[in-house]
Amino acid sequence: MKYSVTTYPPAAQHPVHTLDGVLQYASIGELELETGGRLPDVVLGYETWGRLNGDASNAVLIPHALTGSTHVAQGSTEEPGWWDGLVGPGRTVDTDRFFVVSINMVGGCYGSTGPASADPHGLPWGSRFPFVTIRDSVRAEARLADQLGIRRWHTVLGGSLGGARALEWAVTEPDRVARCAVIAATAASTGEQIAFAQAQIEAIRLDPDYNGGDYYNGCAPLAGLGLARRIAHITYRSEAELQYRFGRTPQPGEDPLGAALPAGRGRYQVESYLDHQGRKLADRFDANSYVILTEALMSHDVARGRGSLAEALAATQAQFLVAAVDSDRLYFPEQSHELAAALPGDNSVHVISAPIGHDGFLTDILQLKDVLERDFFA
Amino acid sequence: MKYSVTTYPPAAQHPVHTLDGVLQYASIGELELETGGRLPDVVLGYETWGRLNGDASNAVLIPHALTGSTHVAQGSTEEPGWWDGLVGPGRTVDTDRFFVVSINMVGGCYGSTGPASADPHGLPWGSRFPFVTIRDSVRAEARLADQLGIRRWHTVLGGSLGGARALEWAVTEPDRVARCAVIAATAASTGEQIAFAQAQIEAIRLDPDYNGGDYYNGCAPLAGLGLARRIAHITYRSEAELQYRFGRTPQPGEDPLGAALPAGRGRYQVESYLDHQGRKLADRFDANSYVILTEALMSHDVARGRGSLAEALAATQAQFLVAAVDSDRLYFPEQSHELAAALPGDNSVHVISAPIGHDGFLTDILQLKDVLERDFFA
Repeated sequence: MKYSVTTYPPAAQHPVHTLDGVLQYASIGELELETGGRLPDVVLGYETWGRLNGDASNAVLIPHALTGSTHVAQGSTEEPGWWDGLVGPGRTVDTDRFFVVSINMVGGCYGSTGPASADPHGLPWGSRFPFVTIRDSVRAEARLADQLGIRRWHTVLGGSLGGARALEWAVTEPDRVARCAVIAATAASTGEQIAFAQAQIEAIRLDPDYNGGDYYNGCAPLAGLGLARRIAHITYRSEAELQYRFGRTPQPGEDPLGAALPAGRGRYQVESYLDHQGRKLADRFDANSYVILTEALMSHDVARGRGSLAEALAATQAQFLVAAVDSDRLYFPEQSHELAAALPGDNSVHVISAPIGHDGFLTDILQLKDVLERDFFA
Repeated sequence: MKYSVTTYPPAAQHPVHTLDGVLQYASIGELELETGGRLPDVVLGYETWGRLNGDASNAVLIPHALTGSTHVAQGSTEEPGWWDGLVGPGRTVDTDRFFVVSINMVGGCYGSTGPASADPHGLPWGSRFPFVTIRDSVRAEARLADQLGIRRWHTVLGGSLGGARALEWAVTEPDRVARCAVIAATAASTGEQIAFAQAQIEAIRLDPDYNGGDYYNGCAPLAGLGLARRIAHITYRSEAELQYRFGRTPQPGEDPLGAALPAGRGRYQVESYLDHQGRKLADRFDANSYVILTEALMSHDVARGRGSLAEALAATQAQFLVAAVDSDRLYFPEQSHELAAALPGDNSVHVISAPIGHDGFLTDILQLKDVLERDFFA
């Protein structure tokens, strides 16, 4: 088991458009929300790659996961994207042929109206930012699709929360989604997924700097957000991965039994690693957005108010591709099988075989290259 | 899958001694600790059941788990014990025949010297309470065994942290342990066990009421300890159990989508359940003790300073019984197999087959009744 970061520089012969992978903004007006809230003057942050063709038949939507940004691919920027291996000129989702769009969820912190945005009085929303469901976000994104001239997505493709968003798109707007790939995601958040999510939200709320969500004039709750990420990150990786990479090895130069008081001892490597993961997220993400998007994920149930799961899915018109990571212990492959079985028609589950756990949807996505190129992007 | 609490009142024909299951105290003097700390005038809280026989050959030690007390069995008290099904008059560990002892770990909050105890100046130890390893605790418990006239335990038997303590007894004091049962426990805490444990300690430290551990004159860090327990409890149960019992069901009378702000919404049943579990522990347990005993568990490595695992275990003289819960996803059965394989002689792993997860070592311990009665308590 060895991990390496591979970068994929665009080959010289491929044209890259100036705006490829650059954050853009669209005003989509007021949004009435499912649980009763209201957001006036919503802005969506989004990125695009490639060009929409004449009949607008080549648009691909890639929803991001919980803490992902819209920067799916590097495009014309310096910054690597989180699915560079999959999306770009000459890649599986070929931006020479397809017009790829990624939209920040309402409530996020990568360009869209979120808790750190100004309310109508010019103050940060903070604790007053409303509950947003994935369905609310789909409705907002549909308005942006209208503005972009996209009546129907060639494909909506996402992993984890992005997979839940893709599925909700296919059910909420059945005639606007021709193909839908749901990777390492479920039809509804399960009891355990809710339980781990709640623990993460509690961690943020416990941080005295959180102040109920109104911290924008003070210190951000970095410790609480870091702890939330620490908990989440353990669930994103497999036990075997943590044991193989770290086991009980001490962090170099530190001694876990090196002090007479526990608070003074050195760390195990796995602790240092999770400290780093927590800090890294806290440095780039807003704690309120983490709460809002986690709440959206907890609320995820594509069948809510739509009868049984099979009944809810019967309305879809998309061709589906369901995939799971075999070592995933947060979104178990069995849950992908349940989704596939409830979808109209015959659907199998494509397996990403990787020891890493849930994060295999990021690290090992190219295992779906062949099936995606054959079934979706031929 | 259905859970019921079964109580086992002592049958009338069995004598119950006045002190059976009653907390007693023993002074064992000063303790020098493995990582350099020192505790003067250590007191151990302990309970006993039955009577030591003439040649002191019938003594059974039952170490408790992380948040367990010494109250293994009801005895002469009103309060049910946590292994009443296993231990008592006429039970598998028959207190008519055996003298059963359970000792609170040093650093705990059920009778032994711990962070809430007074230091030599009469102040609570709090943040100054030293790092205690399982080996330190074994050395302390050996002194109490001396005082009780027990040269050699007939059996040491424990689950989870109690299993780690049992194993460490067999290795640290090889000529004092004739039989040893290690249930749902490992030879060393793994990378993932350390990772989840660290998250729990961070949760306690994040609570502003924790104050670095010096909170005995103020409010106890109930929220932080509750969050620690919430995280732990998820890992003590299986995903299937949480899904079967709770799934996405709302708490009766509450609506998880019932408010325009996430902070005002109703709870899912699984959230309410974990709120309850967190509060229940916070009401009965000391946060500093939780940190000290969790640190002890993280430090657990029976081979530390003793060569390879097989070399470390080669010194043992005990007959072993290794058992695991098949659905345990914190102490994986595979880790019990690794322990069994490294022990001298041929050792298989006895499987407790229960869907509940790690906590099966408590709820389904009677699945080991036959093998324990045949091999250990015939």
